[in-house]
Amino acid sequence: MKRGFYIGRFQPYHNGHQSVLEHIAGKVDEIIIGIGSAQLSHQVDNPFTAGERVLMITRALASLECPFYVIPIEDIQRNALWVAHVRSMAPPFETCYSSNPLVIQLFRESGIKVQSPALYERETLSGTEIRRRMLAGEPWEELVPQPVVRVLREIKGKERLLQIARND
Amino acid sequence: MKRGFYIGRFQPYHNGHQSVLEHIAGKVDEIIIGIGSAQLSHQVDNPFTAGERVLMITRALASLECPFYVIPIEDIQRNALWVAHVRSMAPPFETCYSSNPLVIQLFRESGIKVQSPALYERETLSGTEIRRRMLAGEPWEELVPQPVVRVLREIKGKERLLQIARND
Amino acid sequence: MKRGFYIGRFQPYHNGHQSVLEHIAGKVDEIIIGIGSAQLSHQVDNPFTAGERVLMITRALASLECPFYVIPIEDIQRNALWVAHVRSMAPPFETCYSSNPLVIQLFRESGIKVQSPALYERETLSGTEIRRRMLAGEPWEELVPQPVVRVLREIKGKERLLQIARND
Amino acid sequence: MKRGFYIGRFQPYHNGHQSVLEHIAGKVDEIIIGIGSAQLSHQVDNPFTAGERVLMITRALASLECPFYVIPIEDIQRNALWVAHVRSMAPPFETCYSSNPLVIQLFRESGIKVQSPALYERETLSGTEIRRRMLAGEPWEELVPQPVVRVLREIKGKERLLQIARND
Amino acid sequence: MKRGFYIGRFQPYHNGHQSVLEHIAGKVDEIIIGIGSAQLSHQVDNPFTAGERVLMITRALASLECPFYVIPIEDIQRNALWVAHVRSMAPPFETCYSSNPLVIQLFRESGIKVQSPALYERETLSGTEIRRRMLAGEPWEELVPQPVVRVLREIKGKERLLQIARND
Amino acid sequence: MKRGFYIGRFQPYHNGHQSVLEHIAGKVDEIIIGIGSAQLSHQVDNPFTAGERVLMITRALASLECPFYVIPIEDIQRNALWVAHVRSMAPPFETCYSSNPLVIQLFRESGIKVQSPALYERETLSGTEIRRRMLAGEPWEELVPQPVVRVLREIKGKERLLQIARND
Repeated sequence: MKRGFYIGRFQPYHNGHQSVLEHIAGKVDEIIIGIGSAQLSHQVDNPFTAGERVLMITRALASLECPFYVIPIEDIQRNALWVAHVRSMAPPFETCYSSNPLVIQLFRESGIKVQSPALYERETLSGTEIRRRMLAGEPWEELVPQPVVRVLREIKGKERLLQIARND
Repeated sequence: MKRGFYIGRFQPYHNGHQSVLEHIAGKVDEIIIGIGSAQLSHQVDNPFTAGERVLMITRALASLECPFYVIPIEDIQRNALWVAHVRSMAPPFETCYSSNPLVIQLFRESGIKVQSPALYERETLSGTEIRRRMLAGEPWEELVPQPVVRVLREIKGKERLLQIARND
Repeated sequence: MKRGFYIGRFQPYHNGHQSVLEHIAGKVDEIIIGIGSAQLSHQVDNPFTAGERVLMITRALASLECPFYVIPIEDIQRNALWVAHVRSMAPPFETCYSSNPLVIQLFRESGIKVQSPALYERETLSGTEIRRRMLAGEPWEELVPQPVVRVLREIKGKERLLQIARND
Repeated sequence: MKRGFYIGRFQPYHNGHQSVLEHIAGKVDEIIIGIGSAQLSHQVDNPFTAGERVLMITRALASLECPFYVIPIEDIQRNALWVAHVRSMAPPFETCYSSNPLVIQLFRESGIKVQSPALYERETLSGTEIRRRMLAGEPWEELVPQPVVRVLREIKGKERLLQIARND
Repeated sequence: MKRGFYIGRFQPYHNGHQSVLEHIAGKVDEIIIGIGSAQLSHQVDNPFTAGERVLMITRALASLECPFYVIPIEDIQRNALWVAHVRSMAPPFETCYSSNPLVIQLFRESGIKVQSPALYERETLSGTEIRRRMLAGEPWEELVPQPVVRVLREIKGKERLLQIARND
Repeated sequence: MKRGFYIGRFQPYHNGHQSVLEHIAGKVDEIIIGIGSAQLSHQVDNPFTAGERVLMITRALASLECPFYVIPIEDIQRNALWVAHVRSMAPPFETCYSSNPLVIQLFRESGIKVQSPALYERETLSGTEIRRRMLAGEPWEELVPQPVVRVLREIKGKERLLQIARND
C-alpha cells in the first residue's frame, strides 16, 4: 500500500489542485488530502470553513479513480512540530507531494520523501486570484471544478466574502 | 441531501460503532463521522492517533452503502463552543446521532435535532472493555470488525498499549 | 479610592458568597468580583456559563450599597502567571479577599495584601452541596438568593445539570 | 427583558462609542458591552489592558439611564466559534449592535438580529486617530469623555504608549 | 560529540536524579536535562517553578565532570508531537536516557535510541515521597543534594507546599 | 548573589549580543539569557530552533568569566503577563538588561530595575542584517562569533533559510 500526502488551504479548491491530484492519483494507491489552517474561516484570505472545504474537495473528486482521505489540519504555530502533527492526524504515508518551499523543507528535515508536481497555470489558478475576481465582480467560475461552483452557491460563499471585505 | 453526524473517540473503533453506523446509513443520504479528542494518543485511555482511527473506520466501512466523511475533531476545552466547532469542521448536517448525555444537551441547546440510537451490547462493546482485554491478555479481536484487527496489527497497537501502561 | 477583589467560580452563586460580599462592601469603595474558570460550562462541577454567572451575581447584588464590577476570568493553566492575569483583566485593586489557600499564596508572593473573611456555614453553603441537592432532587433554593433561583429557572439550570450527569 | 450587545476594542473608549451607547440605551432594557481582544495590551494598537478599559467605560457611563454590563472577551482566533464564545461570556441578548462587517456577518450566520447604528464623525472619532494624536503630541482629550481623560492620566496611558512606540 | 537527553519534572530534584546523571556523565560528552511540565508550579504535585528547578539542578551539578544544559520544556498536551517538541527545544542529541514507559515508547516510535538506567532506591527516592515528608513534617533533607536543601530554604519551598495543600 | 537577565531572539546570535553580554558579565555574579519566541523556527525571520540557539550561545560564551543560564522562553501572546512568565522560567534576578522599549516598559511596570546597555554597531550588527546577507549571498560570517559560524554550518542553517525564503 503506497500513500501520498498533499496539503493546501483550498480557499477555495480550484482546477490547479484538481490537476495536481489527478496526477498524484496515477502514482499512489491512496491519497491523503490535508486541509491546512483548518481552524480559519470568515477572513478575506480564508473565507471558508474546513467543513465547507471538505465538501468542495469530496464533490470535485467524486469520479477520481484513486481512493482518498480528506483531513482538516489545524495550525499549531510551531514549524518544528508540524510534520509530527500532520502525521498524527493522517493515516501513514510515505511521500509528500508539495511545491511549497517550507513544506518541502520541513518534510525533508523529517526524512520523508518529497515530490514537487509541476503547477498548472500558476498565475491564474490560485486561491488569491479567485478571491480577487469574486471581490471585483469578475468571472471566477471557470477556474474551479463545476461541483465547487455548486457548493459555493449553496453556502453563499461569494456573498460572505463580499461582506467581510467591506470597510467598517 | 440529508446528512447525519455521529461522534466518538473510537479508541478503538468496534462492533458497537459499526452497528450504530449501519443503522444510521438507512436513515440519511450521507454520514459524517467525527473523531473526538483527535489530538490525543499514546495514553492508556486514548492509545491511537487520529490518523490511525481514520484508517480503522475507513477500512471497516469499506462496504457501507452510504457515503461517509471521517473528520478528526480536536478538543477545544469549552463545552459552550463545541457545537460551533464541530459545525465548522464538518459539512452541513441536520441531525446528530448520539447517546452521550452531554453531546445530546449541547446539540439540543444549539437547536439541532438529536436521535439516540439504541446501543448494542453496551457492557462488552466499549473501548474501555477492549483496552482492558488487551492489557489483560484476553481475546479482544471478536469485539471489533476484522479490518480493525488488521490495522491494529500493522500499527502494533496492542504493543503500544502494553508499553505505555507499564509502571515506571 | 479603595478597591477589593473577590474571586469564585460561582457554580452557582449562593448565600455564602452573598454574605462575604456584604461584609467586603463595608470595607472598600468598590468591589471587583472575578468569575473564575470562566471558559467552563456544561460540566457536572461547572454547569453554568460565565454569562449566566454574571447574571446571577448582578441580580443578587442589585441592592448592594457598594459599586461592583463582575469580570469573567478565563483559566490560564499557569499558577505563576495567574495574579498578573487577574490584574490585567480587572481595574486596579489593593486588597484581595479570599479564603482559598492557593489564591492566598499566589497573591502574597506577588506582594498584594490578602484578607480572609470568615465563611458562613461552610458545609451547607457550597456549590458542591447545591449541585448535589439538585441532582438528588432535594430542596436547594434556600441556599441561594431569590434572584438566583429565578435566573436558574429561566436558563433551565437544574434540567441541564440533570441531563449532563446522566450515564451514557 | 430586552438586551442589546455592543462590542469594541476601546483602545481607548471615545466619544463615538459614547454616542452609539447613548443611542442603544434608548432601544433596550439592558446593554452588554463586550471588550474585544481583552488579552491584548502594551501594543501600539492595543495599549490598554482589559481592566483599564473596564474602568474607562464604567466611569464614562456612570450617568447612563440604562443598566449595563462590561465583559472582557478574549480572542479565540476562530471566527466560526466567535459568536458562541461571546454568548457564553455574556448574559442572554437578542440584538447585536455593530457596524463592523465581520461582526455583522458572524451574528447573521448565527441567526441573531443585527442593527448598525450610524457612526458619529468616523474619521476623527476612532481609536487609531486618538493614538496617533497621543504619539504626535497633538491634543486628543476632546475626543474622549472627561472621565476617560482622568483614567488615562491615572494609569499614565500616554506615557506607556510613547514608550512602547519608541524604536529599539 | 555525543549528547544524551534526560527528562524529569524535578519536583524537587533529588539524589535519585543525581545518581542517574552521574551515571550518564560517564557515557556521553554532554548532557541535556529537560525540565518537564515547565509551565506548572504552585500545585501540590508540582510546587516549584521551572526557574527554581533550573537553580536546584545547576547548583547540585556544579562539580559534575560532564558539561550539561538545563532546558525547561513546557507541556504540549499531544503525545504524538512531544518528541519533535523536545528536539526543537534542545541541542541535537542521539540517545535518550529514561525509565518512563511513555517516554521510552515515544522516543522509540521516533527512531531514537533509548537507554534505561537502573533507578536507585526507587521507593524513597521520588518527588512524591519527598513532598509527602514535607507535608507530614518528617525529615526529607537527606533525600536531596545539599545545594537543593539550600535552594528550597531560600525560596521557602516547604512553606509554599504547606500553604497550597491546606483545605479551603 | 546578584543576577542579571538579558533577552533576545538570537536569530542568529551575533557579535552585538556577545559585546553586550561581556559588558553585563562585569556587573553581575550570574547572567540569565532568555531565548525569546522559543517556539518559532523555520520562518524567514525566525529560522533557527530554540535548541539550535541554545547551542550557538553556549558555544560562543564558552570562555566567559561569568556563569550563565540559557533559558528558552516561549511566547505567551499577552504582554501584561510576560514578566511573570519570564520570572517563572528563570532563576530569581534583580536587574533586567535591555534596550527594547517594550521590554523596558513591562519590567518597569512590574517594579523591576532595568539597565539599557549601549548597542555596538546597531545597523550592521542585527539578526535582520545577517539574514539579509545570507539570502543575498553576501559575507555574514564576520558578524557572528566563530563558534556560531560552526554551529550554523553543522545545522545547515543558511541552506534552510534559502529554501524557506524561496517563492512558491
